[in-house]
Amino acid sequence: MSVYLAGATHTKFGKRPYSIVGLLLEAANEIIENTGITDFDEIYVGTQNPEEFTGEANIASQITDQLALTPTPAFRINTASSSGAAVLHIAYNAVAAGRAKRVLVLSAEKMTNLPTNRATKILAEVIDRSERAAGVSMASLAALITKFYMHKYHMHRDDLSLVALKNHSNGLLNPRAHLHKSITLADVNKSKIIAEPLRLYDCCPLSDGAAAVILTSSRTKVKIIGLGSATDHVPLRNREGLTSFSATVNAGERAYKMAGLSPKDITFAEIHDAFTPFEIIGSEDLGLFEKGEGWKALKNGVTQIDGGLPINPSGGLKSRGHPVGASGMAQVVELYWQMTGNAGKRQVLNPKIGLAQSIGGLATNNFVTILEAQNA
Amino acid sequence: MSVYLAGATHTKFGKRPYSIVGLLLEAANEIIENTGITDFDEIYVGTQNPEEFTGEANIASQITDQLALTPTPAFRINTASSSGAAVLHIAYNAVAAGRAKRVLVLSAEKMTNLPTNRATKILAEVIDRSERAAGVSMASLAALITKFYMHKYHMHRDDLSLVALKNHSNGLLNPRAHLHKSITLADVNKSKIIAEPLRLYDCCPLSDGAAAVILTSSRTKVKIIGLGSATDHVPLRNREGLTSFSATVNAGERAYKMAGLSPKDITFAEIHDAFTPFEIIGSEDLGLFEKGEGWKALKNGVTQIDGGLPINPSGGLKSRGHPVGASGMAQVVELYWQMTGNAGKRQVLNPKIGLAQSIGGLATNNFVTILEAQNA
Repeated sequence: MSVYLAGATHTKFGKRPYSIVGLLLEAANEIIENTGITDFDEIYVGTQNPEEFTGEANIASQITDQLALTPTPAFRINTASSSGAAVLHIAYNAVAAGRAKRVLVLSAEKMTNLPTNRATKILAEVIDRSERAAGVSMASLAALITKFYMHKYHMHRDDLSLVALKNHSNGLLNPRAHLHKSITLADVNKSKIIAEPLRLYDCCPLSDGAAAVILTSSRTKVKIIGLGSATDHVPLRNREGLTSFSATVNAGERAYKMAGLSPKDITFAEIHDAFTPFEIIGSEDLGLFEKGEGWKALKNGVTQIDGGLPINPSGGLKSRGHPVGASGMAQVVELYWQMTGNAGKRQVLNPKIGLAQSIGGLATNNFVTILEAQNA
Repeated sequence: MSVYLAGATHTKFGKRPYSIVGLLLEAANEIIENTGITDFDEIYVGTQNPEEFTGEANIASQITDQLALTPTPAFRINTASSSGAAVLHIAYNAVAAGRAKRVLVLSAEKMTNLPTNRATKILAEVIDRSERAAGVSMASLAALITKFYMHKYHMHRDDLSLVALKNHSNGLLNPRAHLHKSITLADVNKSKIIAEPLRLYDCCPLSDGAAAVILTSSRTKVKIIGLGSATDHVPLRNREGLTSFSATVNAGERAYKMAGLSPKDITFAEIHDAFTPFEIIGSEDLGLFEKGEGWKALKNGVTQIDGGLPINPSGGLKSRGHPVGASGMAQVVELYWQMTGNAGKRQVLNPKIGLAQSIGGLATNNFVTILEAQNA
């Protein structure tokens, strides 16, 4: 059975004075108001770690109760930082199997209530235990990957900065983005080193936020046509290489196969840029550009909003922000907004076939979702 | 598409010297060895709170990697203490939708590494925040429910003890149960008061353990014919009543409807007896006995292994133990063992149609699963 989006939205991302349940309620209430749909066969919630970030367990029951939607069945899904994408893939199955006609799919994370060093430590729990014991963090592993990429493909540090410049520029056009700040190459170069060669402006912020999507078996303007996900070895030392994420390659191949498409059919994309190099690597792993060519396409303006293949018109995780459990769904929300002509000043010219790619952990559980705008 | 069990098992429950990943590996390796099935379209893991119990996040990626099954897609599901059942319901959809032919479904919890008071505090996070602030625990809420039930249905304290006596007796016949101890009424009555009127022998132990099931679209000896789940208000004060769990009633009605059955068709059951009164209340909420009649059926021996409607032949959570994320699946494993004639000395006479009922949180997210033994 075909599965469509009846609506999609996300809250303003940023430092928000709401609890995780409050954030979920904000997103859910808005989508209910926007669509007029008030009853659901099932509710799904994607979130990475509300237990440690907020002390809240039992989140699926809690949000269902707070929405006055008991006794609706409810489930929580977790695949680390791809949870917001994973929960859509799981909810898709319920509709595709004919077991549900209409499901409310939510995702969220609340992170800014904790000191940054505590939040960073919780985030690092997704890393292999032995590598953690050696003292690595998500940023230091990303830095290692960046060095390999720069060396192998002769990318200059200033070329990498173009990801941040583009995404900050796009984020200025997104009223719901966390960071609204135009930056220059000089700003990047004088920003704090987080893990050499990565600087502050190469890293997405810690954010609070929630997203909501309604999936339905009834035809709407936006159809899910491709889904794929894949896992990879958790320890980096066991990977085949460090300049490509095989979990993205495999997830992409599965999604393209399901959609009956190839990379050249994609007209725009949202790519997981928790660290700036990940946007470039992702664009190559998805086959949108040849290996080693991603940074050149960026430099040539191809991935700008008005370029041939816009990437992260939303501002990406870099500027929209990264409430870890919500980001994978926020990407899909951006595709929906673009496809329904609701992207305002960041509207891409040809939002026909959009792809969202989400990374779980340090690329251990990645998701690709392909949507197609339906003809009126 | 119909969905069958190609295999099912669980580890020995108890205080185990394994990590949560080690426990999951033990269950997964055994089912792979038992069935000879080595490749899966997807992997699902149900667990309540490995982050706080063990410091391990990213559990779906980790177990997939440790099983040398990357890049297989993997997902983690959480609905508190019903996670082991919920993950089966979610995995069912993947097969029913035709998106997967064979999936490995795992569940586990590791709890005994923590001091009991710390583990109890983590477990209490599923309770409503305001009720938690008032100092309640799972046991004190269960005690309140017990008092209401005893008063309303004139059940004597000694009648309640019969749940523990029966389930400890059954557990003696289950080599994989946590507790192997025959107890008497006097033992119950002299055991420590946990929350009046509940004593130590009314409460399941904290346990380590894992369970595994393989779901398939190919016909086997055991078919899933009914699935249902439902949520309820998280705060107890908002419930309609305290002597029945509406989430069980609603989940049961949905599962019966899907199966095209009524309660009288059930030939044996596994019921969530984290606290002894829950077995009695569950048996009534599922329609197996009239309201207020559950304790009488127990007293009359109806629910014994050789009775007319055996309940918890495995020993239940009370004796098999309660690794919270695994229990909902261990119940289904027991149904499978009974239906395939592998229940040893605790074999029930007529394992034709088995029902498993699992409680998430304090009955905020409950699941009912009905299996049918297929004719040869």
